[in-house]
Amino acid sequence: MAQALDAARQAADRGEVPVGAVVLGSDGQVLAVASNEVEKRQDPSAHAEILAMREAARLLGSRSLSSCTLVVTLEPCPMCASAMVHFRLGRVIYGAYDPKGGGVDHGPRIFEQPACLHRPEVIGGVREQENARLLKKFFITLRQSRLS
Amino acid sequence: MAQALDAARQAADRGEVPVGAVVLGSDGQVLAVASNEVEKRQDPSAHAEILAMREAARLLGSRSLSSCTLVVTLEPCPMCASAMVHFRLGRVIYGAYDPKGGGVDHGPRIFEQPACLHRPEVIGGVREQENARLLKKFFITLRQSRLS
Repeated sequence: MAQALDAARQAADRGEVPVGAVVLGSDGQVLAVASNEVEKRQDPSAHAEILAMREAARLLGSRSLSSCTLVVTLEPCPMCASAMVHFRLGRVIYGAYDPKGGGVDHGPRIFEQPACLHRPEVIGGVREQENARLLKKFFITLRQSRLS
Repeated sequence: MAQALDAARQAADRGEVPVGAVVLGSDGQVLAVASNEVEKRQDPSAHAEILAMREAARLLGSRSLSSCTLVVTLEPCPMCASAMVHFRLGRVIYGAYDPKGGGVDHGPRIFEQPACLHRPEVIGGVREQENARLLKKFFITLRQSRLS
């Protein structure tokens, strides 16, 4: 989670919503680190989780990440949660809860859908306050810069 | 839809699940055509809809596709439906219904979620039988080739 937080802070420095993600292989080795690149790529689908999973799959030469763990600073949105199903991700560990935009423990709760074909193990709320603080700080700064 | 179907047929010829998508601009002009590239890119997130929306946004130089219509041969999955929310897509027209994998009129019904921040207009079941037939034919051929 420390590496994911670092990636999130780097995203904030670039003016991106600070979300960072790391994919770990079966032995715990880091396969991919990514942060939100929506602004940089001008691509609303360029969330940290999708970028990290794509890179990990490329490295492994496999479309299945069933032996991998994804660590991300914020509860994944429904798009990223559904992408985790497509990548057959083994486990997701996330930081801050996202009652408004989350899709794992909020909203459509993608993995709990009856038709969901793959359910990663989920551990939420890891270093929750630290992760939530980073996002809160970013949005306060953004609001202040828009008002000034 | 004819162009989306053509793209889907080309995907089938490459051994991809045959799904094709077209993004039309505000005057009905074609901005992007894409088909499923999961096999080609070895990327489970490379669905036709996401590839087409990304290309259309790039062409328009805008992250918002609120003036655009996406035409796709199959009911979008939850990942693609959620991506449509992020891209603020204006309208989606789709062909075959997908009771097992769909995320618009089945499963999590992404646009009907109370927390959904943007709801594209939806028209489903357009040239439904033709679109469904293409998919059915593909899976029958795939099964036969695996059995032989």
